[in-house]
Amino acid sequence: MNEGAIGIFDSGVGGLTVTREIMRQLPMENLVYFGDTARVPYGSKSKQTIIRYSTQIVNFLRTKNVKAIVIACNTASALALEELQEQVEIPVIGVVWPGAISAAEATKTMNVGVIGTAATIKSEIYNKYLHELNPDITVVTKACPLFVPLVEEGLIEDRVTDDIARRYLSEFLEYNVDALVLGCTHYPLLRNTIRRTLGDKIKLVNPAYETAKSLKKLLMERDMLNKSMAKVHHEYYVSDMTDQFVPFADRVLPFHVDKIRVVNIEKYKKDSCRRNP
Amino acid sequence: MNEGAIGIFDSGVGGLTVTREIMRQLPMENLVYFGDTARVPYGSKSKQTIIRYSTQIVNFLRTKNVKAIVIACNTASALALEELQEQVEIPVIGVVWPGAISAAEATKTMNVGVIGTAATIKSEIYNKYLHELNPDITVVTKACPLFVPLVEEGLIEDRVTDDIARRYLSEFLEYNVDALVLGCTHYPLLRNTIRRTLGDKIKLVNPAYETAKSLKKLLMERDMLNKSMAKVHHEYYVSDMTDQFVPFADRVLPFHVDKIRVVNIEKYKKDSCRRNP
Repeated sequence: MNEGAIGIFDSGVGGLTVTREIMRQLPMENLVYFGDTARVPYGSKSKQTIIRYSTQIVNFLRTKNVKAIVIACNTASALALEELQEQVEIPVIGVVWPGAISAAEATKTMNVGVIGTAATIKSEIYNKYLHELNPDITVVTKACPLFVPLVEEGLIEDRVTDDIARRYLSEFLEYNVDALVLGCTHYPLLRNTIRRTLGDKIKLVNPAYETAKSLKKLLMERDMLNKSMAKVHHEYYVSDMTDQFVPFADRVLPFHVDKIRVVNIEKYKKDSCRRNP
Repeated sequence: MNEGAIGIFDSGVGGLTVTREIMRQLPMENLVYFGDTARVPYGSKSKQTIIRYSTQIVNFLRTKNVKAIVIACNTASALALEELQEQVEIPVIGVVWPGAISAAEATKTMNVGVIGTAATIKSEIYNKYLHELNPDITVVTKACPLFVPLVEEGLIEDRVTDDIARRYLSEFLEYNVDALVLGCTHYPLLRNTIRRTLGDKIKLVNPAYETAKSLKKLLMERDMLNKSMAKVHHEYYVSDMTDQFVPFADRVLPFHVDKIRVVNIEKYKKDSCRRNP
């Protein structure tokens, strides 16, 4: 059981930023990554569809003997976590709760900002979690739908991205926000742009770090850490072989990924992973 | 048979611009529209995936008693048309061939520009068709991946969209291009921006008009026009109920669409619509 892999999934390539952090904090763990490149993005889709897609992915990951699952995608964490936790008996963690913990710890003004996809913001999950952690926190949220396409077009340092960032973010300055959750895996790549827009006084919270920390804590508490001396293996799967995966992986991961396999994810039907089939 | 509907499909909402043109030129025809809003966009996906998705959609449309199918999406037309024509016995037409005809007729300098999604441009289908129509034509192509997200974010008239348009389009001025194919259903909405960037001397070719004309010609030639006096019906289906469909439809169509139904499109498996099952 302890040699089983950590299953990590995302709507596409963005979850590799979370994967990198898990590799850093848990270098002895085997990993299986799945990116839903055939159906990306999730951020503009409905809850029902995101749950169906996430369930198929969990069904697939379970065929890979995973001992725990990390939802690296904020949108899927926001909309499908509870459903997935009910469906399977192994631990499933998302990035939203760890992100909320980090932000609640970081804020002093008790004004926390959250940026994410339209679906994540609409779910109001960060508001709910932040208020559970501290009812005195005021949460200001903003959907930033153009950030992902801008990153994917490579406009990381660009006047257009700066212009769009000013429109999305300037209201956070009015609300005396001192911690901003980067609630989408692509956003940490825009860290410099966001800094230029908001200045140095706002702490930018990347849920990836806290997610890996939560995962480590969970595996330790349940005595699930990998103690095998066998060589660690990392596997990468996608639902479509697109041109973006390898360049993005090369930018994010500390080594080149040379083997990526394509999975027909639609075959992994809903309901087939129920706890008591 | 003649009372059967025209099936029209697109990766999402953009195909409604083609639908509008078909309604205008063929007001007596029944229509069934399908938008693959659960898996949009197609423009960054592989040929194999686009064929699989298009096949499922055609399978679905055939359950609606369609007499002909129009692929309103440039990407699906570029990558899946031939495969679909082999699979079904009813006529299937795409938007690329009609778009190429319009452009070949419009150009005098024999330099034609084409803009589209990454997948459409990579397919080089417009180059192939334009050279079939006239080997003397020089084709200059450019993928414009940010145009769709900019339109969907509502930045139709905006300095950011102008800035991006200048980057994508300025090379067409160098090549003495006098006809530009708007090779994605969202692009006609950026007509003003493109005009500002390229001036009035370049003819902007919207394949929608020529597609509806080709469809009408085909139905007439094969005596397939609807001659029934019954009330014309239009049906709308999507694979996900997203927030964008109705506002976009209201902007594009001459009337409000009040009924949209959601289809689980993955159920309509590949191969089940083969001519000889």
